[in-house]
Amino acid sequence: MTQAIDTQKATTAFKALKCKECGAEYELKASHVCEFCFGPLEVSYDYSTLRQTVTRESIQAGPNSMWRYRKFLPVASENPIDVGTGMTPLVRSQRLARRLGLNKLYIKNDAVNMPTLSFKDRVVSVALTRARELGFTTVSCASTGNLANSTAAIAAHAGLDCCVFIPADLEAGKVLGSLIYSPTLMAVKGNYDQVNRLCSEVANTHGWGFVNINLRPYYSEGSKTLGFEVAEQLGWQLPDHIVAPLASGSLFTKIYKGFNEFVEVGLVEGKPVRFSGAQAEGCSPIAQAFKEDRDFIQPVKPNTIAKSIAIGNPADGIYAVEIAKKTGGSIESVTDAEIIEGIKLLAETEGIFTETAGGTTVAVLKKLVEAGKINPDETTVVYITGNGLKTQEAVHGYIGEPLTIEAKLDSFEGALERSRTLERLEWQQVLV
Amino acid sequence: MTQAIDTQKATTAFKALKCKECGAEYELKASHVCEFCFGPLEVSYDYSTLRQTVTRESIQAGPNSMWRYRKFLPVASENPIDVGTGMTPLVRSQRLARRLGLNKLYIKNDAVNMPTLSFKDRVVSVALTRARELGFTTVSCASTGNLANSTAAIAAHAGLDCCVFIPADLEAGKVLGSLIYSPTLMAVKGNYDQVNRLCSEVANTHGWGFVNINLRPYYSEGSKTLGFEVAEQLGWQLPDHIVAPLASGSLFTKIYKGFNEFVEVGLVEGKPVRFSGAQAEGCSPIAQAFKEDRDFIQPVKPNTIAKSIAIGNPADGIYAVEIAKKTGGSIESVTDAEIIEGIKLLAETEGIFTETAGGTTVAVLKKLVEAGKINPDETTVVYITGNGLKTQEAVHGYIGEPLTIEAKLDSFEGALERSRTLERLEWQQVLV
Repeated sequence: MTQAIDTQKATTAFKALKCKECGAEYELKASHVCEFCFGPLEVSYDYSTLRQTVTRESIQAGPNSMWRYRKFLPVASENPIDVGTGMTPLVRSQRLARRLGLNKLYIKNDAVNMPTLSFKDRVVSVALTRARELGFTTVSCASTGNLANSTAAIAAHAGLDCCVFIPADLEAGKVLGSLIYSPTLMAVKGNYDQVNRLCSEVANTHGWGFVNINLRPYYSEGSKTLGFEVAEQLGWQLPDHIVAPLASGSLFTKIYKGFNEFVEVGLVEGKPVRFSGAQAEGCSPIAQAFKEDRDFIQPVKPNTIAKSIAIGNPADGIYAVEIAKKTGGSIESVTDAEIIEGIKLLAETEGIFTETAGGTTVAVLKKLVEAGKINPDETTVVYITGNGLKTQEAVHGYIGEPLTIEAKLDSFEGALERSRTLERLEWQQVLV
Repeated sequence: MTQAIDTQKATTAFKALKCKECGAEYELKASHVCEFCFGPLEVSYDYSTLRQTVTRESIQAGPNSMWRYRKFLPVASENPIDVGTGMTPLVRSQRLARRLGLNKLYIKNDAVNMPTLSFKDRVVSVALTRARELGFTTVSCASTGNLANSTAAIAAHAGLDCCVFIPADLEAGKVLGSLIYSPTLMAVKGNYDQVNRLCSEVANTHGWGFVNINLRPYYSEGSKTLGFEVAEQLGWQLPDHIVAPLASGSLFTKIYKGFNEFVEVGLVEGKPVRFSGAQAEGCSPIAQAFKEDRDFIQPVKPNTIAKSIAIGNPADGIYAVEIAKKTGGSIESVTDAEIIEGIKLLAETEGIFTETAGGTTVAVLKKLVEAGKINPDETTVVYITGNGLKTQEAVHGYIGEPLTIEAKLDSFEGALERSRTLERLEWQQVLV
């Protein structure tokens, strides 16, 4: 890796911002809404350039981070903000797979993403690199927590001023996980959708780069790397089925775009991939639209422990519904109790401690398997997008207590005996 | 990486357990103390085998985890327990380097190590792989927190029974970070050294594999990968100076061993590397021995917020002193207040949130620079070994508060104005 040098001319393949609805094209500025139809803007690329300049080998010769896919990302700089984000492990599941009755289950683990332990580090790395290119000196975001952590951390690394907005009722770990980087942190009395509306107003008045508002078309492209990496880590193949959490719906649509781009430029062979999505019952507008076969999202008021995915009015929800439908996937929701069970199930079987969003995804995976919606022999990838240390409140009271003992052998032996007796009794109760 | 297949015959290079003091050799069983002189046992290797079978290319063709260095590790299995541990980012520091006046500073970031966000995942991966080979079905450890997290998680992944021991006064994140994996968790009323003594007794009576007691010779070898990775990530070169935290002293000695092994088998060129170590003033028996030029460690009773490195009677302390001396390094200690400043400094300049051990290391780095003990042009690597989300208590009250606002533009503008005024006032006070 270190010996290889990329001698290719630095050509950029991203060409325009394009309206997803009417196709109108715009310059590559900080803008996210179509002036004609108010549809969302997305970055478009010249794939013939990519086909000529990118190979599996040129990617593998790149850095051991998401920036090995730089040519597929909307940045001009050859020196993007690279703090080692991405290239997180794709773990072949044994024990969770057996428990669920699946034969080829993989876990893509962004709970250990660098620097702030969620997939948001990917989108923020792209957004802040682009923000710098566009001349912004202050960056900002509307966040359910993880995005604020990531924006504050990577802005600190890059030396950009930073002001982040969160709902005031977030988990302690997510609040502290932003404050530690010394941003200006605004805790808004309201839910995420209210925070988001406030930020849209601020974006218009302060000339700041809001990663998920005026920089959203660039930002969201970072999620494609969760598609690219899985394809590369499976040995340059696409999986048969993916299960991912749905908040705004953006991540889901970008994994889809990532797979399609790899097919388009000839890096992997095309094949059908089913896309299934996970929501919490207390905030499931996308699952509801899917279930009722609607072509519009009915916004809801969130009420769930899965705060990081509690978006009542999801910007890309309808595109997520479209993708699930046309690929033969599903969108399901689970209760808060099932979410906690999902967190525990993943920890006990795989040794991976995820936050509530990951618990949601694992619980939905289980539900889909039980409903016969996942074929046991499909190569299935479940996306774990954040770390459990940030939402410790969610599992308090559900995971037992330590056995407190004196530093003496007989105190230990007594406690061990009592815990074993208790276990036996619990088993007998289960059997009765 | 994915196309390459390692066709080499599976030869193992680890040959015996050897006493570090008298050189007596032992079979490769679960044993850690010399029967003749009570010295610690260490794994020895046949380096001529390694020289013939390992190349830079064969390593790079291996997995994207610490197991790419499998032949340097004391396991026979070709299928070790690999959950993606290791290959964490080596970040070239810009802003911390500038702040300190260093030109070539790198941060090895095990705060994002898989699965439990500390370097302990490396040693536990080796220990549990070896435990399985030796027929253990229950694994255990004496821990200051991180090791318990890691043992519980990786045991869960591998389907091994697990009982871990911690001091009862640990940080909440470290307790929960073990419980989530459902081990038997013994919280001992006492400090780490008392926990450790209790575990030595238990190891003799229960036939369990204690990763850092009877499996210690295998376990500790896992830390060599922190040397191997840095050498590979620097482009197959050794650094000029490393700064690492000191708890038992084992990590320090194994980074040293790792560098020397790479030189021994011809993977990198030999050169002098200075080794500097970091302790908290409230538990600094190794720093004291270094300062007083003693060849023995005087045990202390720990009293510091840096609980993960609070070992009052460090098993490998004296070897750490030897290495620091013979390489021209230093061992320094810092106060709890300096540790908190170290955590904040790393977060604000690099966007990396480390725990108290990392704060200690950064604070010592700063102290060494200020004392002229680090040459600004040396390639210096600072080892960050754990994540700040596990020791949130340590920074509570030192990192400010969010600005709580209504979801309205004027509420935001008012708060922003007040915070800017406050900042100006603080600056004026600094200037006065």
